[in-house]
Amino acid sequence: MAVGENCFPHMEPVPGIELGTACAGIKQQERDDLLVLALPEGTACAAVFTQNAFCAAPVHIAKDHLQQNPRLLIINSGNANAGTGEQGMDDALAVCRLLAEQKGVATEQVLPFSTGVIGENLDLSRFERAIPKALSCLSEKNWEAAARAIMTTDTRPKGASVTVEIDGHPVVITGISKGSGMILPNMATMLAFIMTDAHIDTVLLQESLQEAVNLSFNAISVDGDTSTNDACLIAATSPVEKPQLQAGSDGYKKFLGALKKICKELAEAIVRDGEGATRLIRVQVNNALSDNEARMVAQTVALSPLVKTAVFAGDPNWGRILAAVGRAGVEPLELDKLKIYLNDVCIVEGGGRSLSYSEAAGQDAMAKDEIAIKIDLARGECCFEMLGCDLSYDYVRINAEYRT
Amino acid sequence: MAVGENCFPHMEPVPGIELGTACAGIKQQERDDLLVLALPEGTACAAVFTQNAFCAAPVHIAKDHLQQNPRLLIINSGNANAGTGEQGMDDALAVCRLLAEQKGVATEQVLPFSTGVIGENLDLSRFERAIPKALSCLSEKNWEAAARAIMTTDTRPKGASVTVEIDGHPVVITGISKGSGMILPNMATMLAFIMTDAHIDTVLLQESLQEAVNLSFNAISVDGDTSTNDACLIAATSPVEKPQLQAGSDGYKKFLGALKKICKELAEAIVRDGEGATRLIRVQVNNALSDNEARMVAQTVALSPLVKTAVFAGDPNWGRILAAVGRAGVEPLELDKLKIYLNDVCIVEGGGRSLSYSEAAGQDAMAKDEIAIKIDLARGECCFEMLGCDLSYDYVRINAEYRT
Repeated sequence: MAVGENCFPHMEPVPGIELGTACAGIKQQERDDLLVLALPEGTACAAVFTQNAFCAAPVHIAKDHLQQNPRLLIINSGNANAGTGEQGMDDALAVCRLLAEQKGVATEQVLPFSTGVIGENLDLSRFERAIPKALSCLSEKNWEAAARAIMTTDTRPKGASVTVEIDGHPVVITGISKGSGMILPNMATMLAFIMTDAHIDTVLLQESLQEAVNLSFNAISVDGDTSTNDACLIAATSPVEKPQLQAGSDGYKKFLGALKKICKELAEAIVRDGEGATRLIRVQVNNALSDNEARMVAQTVALSPLVKTAVFAGDPNWGRILAAVGRAGVEPLELDKLKIYLNDVCIVEGGGRSLSYSEAAGQDAMAKDEIAIKIDLARGECCFEMLGCDLSYDYVRINAEYRT
Repeated sequence: MAVGENCFPHMEPVPGIELGTACAGIKQQERDDLLVLALPEGTACAAVFTQNAFCAAPVHIAKDHLQQNPRLLIINSGNANAGTGEQGMDDALAVCRLLAEQKGVATEQVLPFSTGVIGENLDLSRFERAIPKALSCLSEKNWEAAARAIMTTDTRPKGASVTVEIDGHPVVITGISKGSGMILPNMATMLAFIMTDAHIDTVLLQESLQEAVNLSFNAISVDGDTSTNDACLIAATSPVEKPQLQAGSDGYKKFLGALKKICKELAEAIVRDGEGATRLIRVQVNNALSDNEARMVAQTVALSPLVKTAVFAGDPNWGRILAAVGRAGVEPLELDKLKIYLNDVCIVEGGGRSLSYSEAAGQDAMAKDEIAIKIDLARGECCFEMLGCDLSYDYVRINAEYRT
């Protein structure tokens, strides 16, 4: 139940970044559920976290430690350590301490991330046993194992990698993500870890990440729910032999372009593996008056249960798309100027169904497993693309299954 | 597939208001799909309409005619006359004219309402044939037939009626509604028509309707989609022998209270008959800082697909409720002061699962077909209640079925 082929890409190692995984048996006994990422001295880190007012304990700790010269990341699946109060904070810190002691760094130099069941306390003894195992296999080559260790009910590991030449040096950007698989009874948690050997300072790195995330991870939706644990982190090893990227420079622009590409690939992989997803929906809003307006319309259409069920059914139901655009809060919208396309088939123009539209053409467009809904607002020059997926019986089944 | 017993209530006639139905064969041949309501001279009318930027043609016409001393309402099911451009406007006006000519009133004194398939033009010949039939059976007693004639895929007729004594006179308020049945491929359209023999002017009537609608029809959700055709109209025959209601008077307060009761009953009937609904969810937000904050939280929880699927499954999943509260945009929310109850069972307090909570108690609460989710924000004194329903396989089935 995922859209398109499952093809985990070649993952170019990022010099200096080592990964190790182990089975801690947090929820499942038969697969690795713990990942340690070791960062060389001098690595710059930046991150964005969930906007949910109720952050999980590890999110609080990771935010706090982000400014303390991070040297290690530790990620577990199977338990989100969310809704766990003071005990949860103590546990997240204890996990950092266990790892820090083994590697001879300060506790504050470890960033913790968790995804899985909420409302259950971590069992620290499992971390105590598994951390040495993960450390013993640290290697620059463990990317696929890392992508698998952070999965919850994701059906596929998710990775993306690119090498670009910047200012005469090769720069690698390699990342992994996990998404909308459910650990019952949890909401979907999105995590992404992106590593690069670019030379860049923390401030510019944060700026580049924010810009890339807005167009990628913040432009996807499975069901509109936001997890308590979402996080996306980027680490740049910043080797001294490379020139440091400067804001506005050609080198920075090239880096930002490559980072956007990686973020989009990792985000798209999450939607393709959305709960119960059978079709990918690409909602492209063009000629809006502002970026925000374009985003509002794209989001309203991508999240509409009526549009999502129509796409599941392969039904070219332009009335539902039109109604979703109409309630997106854009005023005043002129119906007679608006155009809507399914892929390249014009379905709405002149205030109603396009005269050139035929049901057969609409059906053809909807028969594909990737559907572009293009909305031309004819109001300005801004645009936004949002990725979503359909709403299927399996979405209900996955989310209605009882927690045991 | 509706929540609770189907018990259409006794509908007290409103003196002077006559109703007539007929089968126009617009979509189905076997049942009445046309309703005419005749209002006596001097009736005050007020209405609220869909906020969707793309109103259907009859909505435009009804808004326009509302100020022209309305004498007749004409409502058809089976075709929404939406997304039909100029032709749709001409057709809606033509329907008004057909009826106006038969009754000897001006075209502008007829208000048209439509619900059903969008993007199809009306067949005027069907109206031409059916209008005389509807007029021939006009009677004060046809309320149940009227409630049935405006149904689309509603599974039950919806009505509510009350008589109160105001300033020494009996005042009747009787109304019908239709809701979240789908006419494929349309979105659900909500319509409500409420009649009363109170004596009240148009301005105060509009004010009372707006206040009642905010707490009833604007406090329900099936899937968060807003139709192009939603409308709620109230007509008050305003007989001269009754004293006119004055703003702020005890009589007006009594009228407003009764109107709120009728609106809530009609709105609740819509949710109970929501598409695929198996459980009613009553989200009560208490101790919010503002009415708007309370509404935002209630709406986010009531619309969350993860909460809705958990309720469908009878799963007391407090993590999903907590996460929905956390993303409702209320800042700063203090997790350790927040309390959440399922019916009267406290499930969240002190930042996590309540110590007094037992899974058995949670399961008991969720086993009922009406579930109250009570959220105490501990921030202020405002509150709001929103009614919603669960998200079931049948919701997907109903909305994914193809249109033919």
